[in-house]
Amino acid sequence: MKKQFAVIGLGRFGGSICKSLSEQGMEVLAIDTDEEKVNNFSTIVTHAVVADGTDENALKSLGVRNFDHVIVAIGDNIQASILTTLILEEFGVSHITVKAQNDYHEKVLNKIGAHKVVHPERDMGIRIAHNIVSKNVLDYLELSKDYSIVELIAGEKICNKTLIDLNIRAKYGVNIMAVKRGDDINVSPHGTEKILQGDILIVIGAIVDINKLENALFDKD
Amino acid sequence: MKKQFAVIGLGRFGGSICKSLSEQGMEVLAIDTDEEKVNNFSTIVTHAVVADGTDENALKSLGVRNFDHVIVAIGDNIQASILTTLILEEFGVSHITVKAQNDYHEKVLNKIGAHKVVHPERDMGIRIAHNIVSKNVLDYLELSKDYSIVELIAGEKICNKTLIDLNIRAKYGVNIMAVKRGDDINVSPHGTEKILQGDILIVIGAIVDINKLENALFDKD
Ligand SMILES: Nc1ncnc2c1ncn2[C@@H]1O[C@H](COP(=O)(O)OP(=O)(O)OP(=O)(O)O)[C@@H](O)[C@H]1O
Ligand SMILES: Nc1ncnc2c1ncn2[C@@H]1O[C@H](COP(=O)(O)OP(=O)(O)OP(=O)(O)O)[C@@H](O)[C@H]1O
Ligand SMILES: [Ca+2]
Ligand SMILES: [Ca+2]
Ligand SMILES: [Ca+2]
Ligand SMILES: [Ca+2]
Repeated sequence: MKKQFAVIGLGRFGGSICKSLSEQGMEVLAIDTDEEKVNNFSTIVTHAVVADGTDENALKSLGVRNFDHVIVAIGDNIQASILTTLILEEFGVSHITVKAQNDYHEKVLNKIGAHKVVHPERDMGIRIAHNIVSKNVLDYLELSKDYSIVELIAGEKICNKTLIDLNIRAKYGVNIMAVKRGDDINVSPHGTEKILQGDILIVIGAIVDINKLENALFDKD
Repeated sequence: MKKQFAVIGLGRFGGSICKSLSEQGMEVLAIDTDEEKVNNFSTIVTHAVVADGTDENALKSLGVRNFDHVIVAIGDNIQASILTTLILEEFGVSHITVKAQNDYHEKVLNKIGAHKVVHPERDMGIRIAHNIVSKNVLDYLELSKDYSIVELIAGEKICNKTLIDLNIRAKYGVNIMAVKRGDDINVSPHGTEKILQGDILIVIGAIVDINKLENALFDKD
């Protein structure tokens, strides 16, 4: 059976979750107190309903207790976010993810039984700060506090060289796992492969080593 | 010389950028109209100043035109966000990143010369939707619309098997680039390596192939 998701609060964050879940073929019940928001999502999700997350009976009659995963994406009204989470926990919903506005809010949510607390603005701030510090880093995945995978844009210093010429693994201790050119991804590229300007190298390694590689072989602003 | 960043608007998003840039050793000028916010950041960033982003003379006297990168993280006041961006563009600031509230806001920002427009809530919604659809996927990096790198948590079906036993590359067409166990990352693991429950496999491949792998070898909810 398809997994069933409910999203309570259709702001930018909750709304984006609804869209993405629907695109992935999931059943989504979208809930908001604001009728206009609900109408905007009626063609996107399986069901869109005007209801208040703090109204236990409303949630009950919508069958929310049987959903696999409920996401609480109520923003400024912290009290409503907390009360909604409490109701879901008492229903015994098995996965409750809640957006927190600040650390205090997070603490309360954890105490009352939220299974996952997220800070979208804060987490995206960290991601973007990493991406803007270096103009070579397009995106990254943090594997641990010391290791990352990063997408590096090839500039003048390395273009028209082969991976053998560059000898990156021996010199910097990092591995090039793939090379992206336009929409093509070349996984485990050959040593004789020539890098072209604008190619994106997918590199895995210790963050200090990746930084060294970047300083040596990539453009500075 | 160290790169200089200015962040205008110290909400959760702008504030998080300030912190992360400072942690990475960057010089950061933090600006907000709200004195309390500014005080909160005075010990975190190089300089924290009460000023209005729409006040051209204030920005001029702070020397903002000489900064390498300015991030506009003003939220609800779309008009102030647009006007601030316009002033920065006229200053000739070489990198202007702006947070947008919606598509219309984004269009205007692009027209008036923002170099990068970001949607933190929306983008984090997409990330989180991907992470919650599958309980096996811990995090991911989208390489293109068809390719991804994902972190998959090893469950019962594959634990105590070696990579040779599993034969994942031949069977599913995806590559295991690294195995994470606690804080240890094992890059390019040997075929004789045994997977333990809770290990995190870093897998690269076409999204359809990764989904097949997940359906076959990872736990369902
Ligand atoms: N008690 C409630 N029940 C259901 N929905 C609610 C409730 N309270 C608020 N909402 C809805 O939650 C949504 C998000 O809230 P709000 O706009 O305050 O948050 P936000 O942090 O600015 O959101 P975002 O950053 O995701 O855009 C709104 O559409 C609002 O109508
Ligand atoms: N003209 C301005 N100049 C400088 N700062 C401003 C200006 N207008 C608003 N700000 C500040 O921008 C910050 C972010 O604005 P706001 O809280 O409206 O956005 P938000 O989208 O809710 O933020 P976030 O989601 O990042 O928490 C606030 O601290 C606010 O004081
Ligand atoms: Ca709002
Ligand atoms: Ca807000
Ligand atoms: Ca917000
Ligand atoms: Ca990406």
